[in-house]
Amino acid sequence: MHAEIFALGSELTTGAKLDTNSQWLSVELAALGIETRFHHTVADDLPAMLDELRAAAFRSELAILTGGLGPTADDLTRDALAQLAGVPLEEDAASLAHVLACYRRFGRPMPPKNRVQALVPAGAEVVPNPRGTAPGLWMTLPPGAGPDAPGGPGGCTLVALPGVPAEMKPMFRESVAPRLPRGTNLIRVARVNLFGAGESSVEERLGDLTARGRVPEVGITAHEATITLRIVARGTDETEIERQFAEVRRLAAERVGDLIFGEEDDTLAGRLLATLRARGETLAVAEVGTGGRLADWLSEEDDPAAPAFLGGVTENRDDYCLGEPVAPGDAAERVRRQWGATYALFTPTLSAEGDGPGLTLATPDGPVREPYRRVGDSTIARSRLGKAALDLLRRHLVGLAT
Amino acid sequence: MHAEIFALGSELTTGAKLDTNSQWLSVELAALGIETRFHHTVADDLPAMLDELRAAAFRSELAILTGGLGPTADDLTRDALAQLAGVPLEEDAASLAHVLACYRRFGRPMPPKNRVQALVPAGAEVVPNPRGTAPGLWMTLPPGAGPDAPGGPGGCTLVALPGVPAEMKPMFRESVAPRLPRGTNLIRVARVNLFGAGESSVEERLGDLTARGRVPEVGITAHEATITLRIVARGTDETEIERQFAEVRRLAAERVGDLIFGEEDDTLAGRLLATLRARGETLAVAEVGTGGRLADWLSEEDDPAAPAFLGGVTENRDDYCLGEPVAPGDAAERVRRQWGATYALFTPTLSAEGDGPGLTLATPDGPVREPYRRVGDSTIARSRLGKAALDLLRRHLVGLAT
Repeated sequence: MHAEIFALGSELTTGAKLDTNSQWLSVELAALGIETRFHHTVADDLPAMLDELRAAAFRSELAILTGGLGPTADDLTRDALAQLAGVPLEEDAASLAHVLACYRRFGRPMPPKNRVQALVPAGAEVVPNPRGTAPGLWMTLPPGAGPDAPGGPGGCTLVALPGVPAEMKPMFRESVAPRLPRGTNLIRVARVNLFGAGESSVEERLGDLTARGRVPEVGITAHEATITLRIVARGTDETEIERQFAEVRRLAAERVGDLIFGEEDDTLAGRLLATLRARGETLAVAEVGTGGRLADWLSEEDDPAAPAFLGGVTENRDDYCLGEPVAPGDAAERVRRQWGATYALFTPTLSAEGDGPGLTLATPDGPVREPYRRVGDSTIARSRLGKAALDLLRRHLVGLAT
Repeated sequence: MHAEIFALGSELTTGAKLDTNSQWLSVELAALGIETRFHHTVADDLPAMLDELRAAAFRSELAILTGGLGPTADDLTRDALAQLAGVPLEEDAASLAHVLACYRRFGRPMPPKNRVQALVPAGAEVVPNPRGTAPGLWMTLPPGAGPDAPGGPGGCTLVALPGVPAEMKPMFRESVAPRLPRGTNLIRVARVNLFGAGESSVEERLGDLTARGRVPEVGITAHEATITLRIVARGTDETEIERQFAEVRRLAAERVGDLIFGEEDDTLAGRLLATLRARGETLAVAEVGTGGRLADWLSEEDDPAAPAFLGGVTENRDDYCLGEPVAPGDAAERVRRQWGATYALFTPTLSAEGDGPGLTLATPDGPVREPYRRVGDSTIARSRLGKAALDLLRRHLVGLAT
């Protein structure tokens, strides 16, 4: 089964808004074994929409549309689907009741123009929208011979959903995905997160694991110095896919295990706080180069009921901490004592030229120092420095940095 | 002139990557007066690409393509354009020299497969790429009668650019935009940034300024409690557009002037630091609820050569600061003295229930206190609290908060 995805609305073709729905839908469809070959973004223009919809309905078996279901004159999805199928629009009593009920909940009368949201192409079904006024539509064009059969030789199912992601996504998962036929080739993605080496050096150490055409496919992406292995497994069932994930995880652990800090949405700060909490230990920070970013990450991911992050200071020079001159890096120990923490991390300035103090981790057994090579003071350089500091403590806790 | 934009690559249709090039190109084209009616994203599949390109070339006068110009077997843009025009691919000597020169700069021999990057559809021109190996292509299909003329009745110019935004964007601005005909309806966007009230309350105060169909059009968007007015002006020349921008700016200043803090990419932190620097004043922070985020914003936007932000502390409770118990809010004055700053801001905890200390601004003339209504401890709640703190100082400096 092949799918095409439509994002409808002039706010997208003018560039006023970025469409992220189509990407999300592609991943969801792939997980069901349905391959997407086209995304289409079309302005609020009925002939343009019909032109693209006709081509898609003829050549593909599934089209998912988002947007254009609002109450105003430029919301044309209902009209486009009716004209594509060659049927009239009819008022659906249940949909009208739903729109009216929404406005009762808002505590105001339904504006007359919203009545169009209850119109449905004759023969189409309504997809319920528990989070908004616009119901979705599910329309089937039967397979037909000849160039005039709108569904083409394979027929086509067209599903229209609202453009608001918070409404569209649950509607897709609750009411659309369960009704779609499963393909024979499920595609699932798993992620392994690394820090502490560049993309090309990780690639070299991984060897054939990232070779083109390998099964499963393993890609490398980098974002603010975090390296992510993206495992794309294809298989006919979950067991086969899990087996592929497990094999890559095992090989990655063998080859770059010292760099791996987590999986999926794990962050260095989040994993580190969990480890500290489990050990009954705490952390404070003395920031120059990261300027508050470490504190922001740690306080945001910490558990306020059982904090492992105690706080810290931001200074704008390396040789001063809390009103006193300090030797380079000694700010870590100063802050560790001030907050009564097990550990404290110091990040050096990024804006100076040449050599300077490196990273320092203050521990109950004395400081651990590491040189740090500056690469300018951009927002990425700050994030990289912050992650290097967290990673120094991570490695210390597993005996890799002493 | 109508344009269609293509983003080519299976990494887009599978959802592995998000296409942001098409949005960027739409905005650039609109500024030239060229309207985009379609975006197309197509998998690495030659028949699928040809299908969409044929429809676009026939009905529109301009198609901009990104992606598919790399050296591997799934980079099909060159082949698709040649087949669309019905011409062979020919090796371009200047392009080959460019690819070879790139590899000499990398310090390694050109892999044989990269030779395909010098192939050009016969009759097409090369668009230079100073930042990468893949040259772009500029191909013109003349206007023709009948359904077999690939350029359709109006003819079509097709421009293929690399998918890497850092290469594509300067190529578009340097070598493509200057050659495109200017439309008669230029579209430009200007932004005015506000803080301190909700979206619906701002909309109410703006009155008819945001009415549908008004000229110029004014939209409201909200991002982490910053409200942005987006003015979309259309006109035949720059003077007409500037007149429209000026009129909206004047009306916005009359109606919500107390909330306006900047324009375009201005942030509250950046504007505030500029004001402090001009006054020869400085700022420190005592953060609980913002947990380091204020320091991060301020240190990132500050000028290291003439810092107006001196630093501060992050604590995880309201009643403690630098190892001493403090009365709620007194942390601001404690930190102001510690850092020798003109002002200091205190942000209260977000994670507690019920009433608590509000925001405090410590000044040389004593504290300014404002209650703050908590709305939970999400990342948006933290940003909102941080902006409320900065805005308290902004208003104090202009005499609106005393």
